[in-house]
Amino acid sequence: MPILTLLTDFGTQDEYVGVMKGVILSIAPDVRLVDLSHQIPPQDVRRAAFLLTSAVPYFPPDTVHLAVVDPGVGTERRPLAVRTPAGTFVGPDNGLFSWVLAGVPEWVAVEIREPAYRLPHVSFTFHGRDIFAPAAAYLAAGVPLERLGPRLTDPVRLPSPRLEVRDDAIEGEVLYADRFGNLVTSVGRFSWDGDRLQLAPAFRPMSGEVTIGATAARVALAGAELRGIRRTYGEVAVGEPLALVGSSGFLEIAVRQGNAAATLDAVPGTPVTLWVCTAETQGAQGR
Amino acid sequence: MPILTLLTDFGTQDEYVGVMKGVILSIAPDVRLVDLSHQIPPQDVRRAAFLLTSAVPYFPPDTVHLAVVDPGVGTERRPLAVRTPAGTFVGPDNGLFSWVLAGVPEWVAVEIREPAYRLPHVSFTFHGRDIFAPAAAYLAAGVPLERLGPRLTDPVRLPSPRLEVRDDAIEGEVLYADRFGNLVTSVGRFSWDGDRLQLAPAFRPMSGEVTIGATAARVALAGAELRGIRRTYGEVAVGEPLALVGSSGFLEIAVRQGNAAATLDAVPGTPVTLWVCTAETQGAQGR
Amino acid sequence: MPILTLLTDFGTQDEYVGVMKGVILSIAPDVRLVDLSHQIPPQDVRRAAFLLTSAVPYFPPDTVHLAVVDPGVGTERRPLAVRTPAGTFVGPDNGLFSWVLAGVPEWVAVEIREPAYRLPHVSFTFHGRDIFAPAAAYLAAGVPLERLGPRLTDPVRLPSPRLEVRDDAIEGEVLYADRFGNLVTSVGRFSWDGDRLQLAPAFRPMSGEVTIGATAARVALAGAELRGIRRTYGEVAVGEPLALVGSSGFLEIAVRQGNAAATLDAVPGTPVTLWVCTAETQGAQGR
Repeated sequence: MPILTLLTDFGTQDEYVGVMKGVILSIAPDVRLVDLSHQIPPQDVRRAAFLLTSAVPYFPPDTVHLAVVDPGVGTERRPLAVRTPAGTFVGPDNGLFSWVLAGVPEWVAVEIREPAYRLPHVSFTFHGRDIFAPAAAYLAAGVPLERLGPRLTDPVRLPSPRLEVRDDAIEGEVLYADRFGNLVTSVGRFSWDGDRLQLAPAFRPMSGEVTIGATAARVALAGAELRGIRRTYGEVAVGEPLALVGSSGFLEIAVRQGNAAATLDAVPGTPVTLWVCTAETQGAQGR
Repeated sequence: MPILTLLTDFGTQDEYVGVMKGVILSIAPDVRLVDLSHQIPPQDVRRAAFLLTSAVPYFPPDTVHLAVVDPGVGTERRPLAVRTPAGTFVGPDNGLFSWVLAGVPEWVAVEIREPAYRLPHVSFTFHGRDIFAPAAAYLAAGVPLERLGPRLTDPVRLPSPRLEVRDDAIEGEVLYADRFGNLVTSVGRFSWDGDRLQLAPAFRPMSGEVTIGATAARVALAGAELRGIRRTYGEVAVGEPLALVGSSGFLEIAVRQGNAAATLDAVPGTPVTLWVCTAETQGAQGR
Repeated sequence: MPILTLLTDFGTQDEYVGVMKGVILSIAPDVRLVDLSHQIPPQDVRRAAFLLTSAVPYFPPDTVHLAVVDPGVGTERRPLAVRTPAGTFVGPDNGLFSWVLAGVPEWVAVEIREPAYRLPHVSFTFHGRDIFAPAAAYLAAGVPLERLGPRLTDPVRLPSPRLEVRDDAIEGEVLYADRFGNLVTSVGRFSWDGDRLQLAPAFRPMSGEVTIGATAARVALAGAELRGIRRTYGEVAVGEPLALVGSSGFLEIAVRQGNAAATLDAVPGTPVTLWVCTAETQGAQGR
């Protein structure tokens, strides 16, 4: 009973998501359907690509992830299926899986072309229903990837979000605001090691080792400066802004029991600088 | 493991949908639940009736479709269950299934009356929970339709959306804007045949055969005129409006990577005219 | 195949809910997932606590209810699991289960502490994923409650919503407006007995028996006065306000095919008085 997740920008007011599920269950009646989100802003491929990097690690590796954010539907963009050690991915070849692929050691991709694994009639505007849902369902039902079409070695790659590691600072950008108004940034991915933060690769491979001191760090964005990187919302007063490491390891700017996006007037693309105490950074590099 | 779909105007902020699912799974623990939508505008029976016509064909015929948009709850309106070759339908008898029934060759309906297939206590305001969810669950679990109550032969029918086929034009109306702001109209249902469009019945039976040339056609609505019916968004520049055949075969007005409802200031009910090149139409009729 | 429900304030735009489901299905692949709601207003523990009291009675008693509205994440607040005859509950110890616990004869609670039933890495900001989802999944999979941690006897309790029963009136407050704009109040919980209403305990135990006459009652809120408690929306004209007993037994103020919250300008906390005909009340008490 494999899991099949769905990620789209279709919203939930129309029949589009339900129709894809009808198609999937007609082909693979035993599959477990899980919605990742259908509220991706219309045609925001980057937002969907980032969401996948945060969600995929929490699903079993035999999960099929169906993602349809598809501004190029009906054009020459290719339909794509990719098998990786972290899961199998199906969707338009427009960069949706760029950062998932950057995080796995190897992958195999095909262009979905075989008519046997599509609906009999393919529309010009809803490949989620006619091509991607059937392909994902057949893969979940055990059809080998290679049957879907010829090998594809050059999937479209999105440019990575800004992430520059210097001696005295890490520079990035606001990626989006979540439901709570927390500003999720491209600065990371961090994990805690005592009161120091260890930087791990995100979006692309990274060489060397970087750790920084959480207390001495300062975060600057949108004219505001925040001292220290906190562990929890509870470390500041209600209504106060803070910088912390979010649940996927990226630097987030939040307001305790408030809405940072509204309070700080920051938007996707707003530059973020994490200033590091130089002495500490050098110490870290010397470990 | 039959499928049971849910379509309501309950939204997802309250407990109403979850409670119906609790009732259903208490009766039929093995059923597969699929949400069609819970974002139907409050009490908009027409919108729900139209959504069903687009969704039902993609589900297996043994699916039970539970639809609760019920402005008449607690009044004399009858609770309805209908078996058709396209699926089984449960909901208030207020026209929700009008256009599904218009598209099937035969159907059998009953008024749900048998107390054994309701919750023990029936409220005056939430028949979705107390009457419709149990009825749908028992049907999915294999209870014969006829056990639910006496035969009903005159279900309420909604007036059909505007759709007038003339020699030189097809006249219709905007039905609604979808999540992307695409204006879905009552003009159709079309399928492509080369560069011509074949008209099939929608909402009611149709006599004769109509095909039109896509290139020569013009679409007029809300003071705008669009030349040609396109296959894909990619045929016009970003930000430009276009007319195309939507994924369910109805004429749609869209703006490429934009929002047509906002751009064109059209609303449900706005008249739409599809002007046809007369010579072509006659040619088509002569095939 | 037990049911596991999810109730959060996470919204559905981000990956948070999907990630919890990935964690749950990795531990308990056969569990049936049902969303109660993810649209609880951010950090509104009271709203979630009330929603649970309306939803839980419609699920089988072996259901596990996972609720994560968690403004105190990362602070000293305890993670909680409670077994009751009405279901098993998992979430932060902040009062979420106050009114469910008030309605059951007995319960057993533990503080979730055992590392074997968490994710290997526990973040500071997303205990829904790292602690609560795994605990709920293990409980659904059959792990005994006592294995999760030590007994806890003093869970946090929310103050009850206002509900004062006097001889001539019952006083309460607006709790929230639902999707339709219906104002749900703390006055109840009522059940119909002919044209009289019987009051049952809500939020806390109640002594004695109270019944009131529905026709003679009057409801006052926000400067408006409504005569009688109705059974159905259909008893007043379209657009008219009315008081009725909602589907969970609480007094609701609605506008037929309209939005009472907008029309009457009432908000959570607005006082509501149900005036009772004294003679009738005394008669009822004499039964």
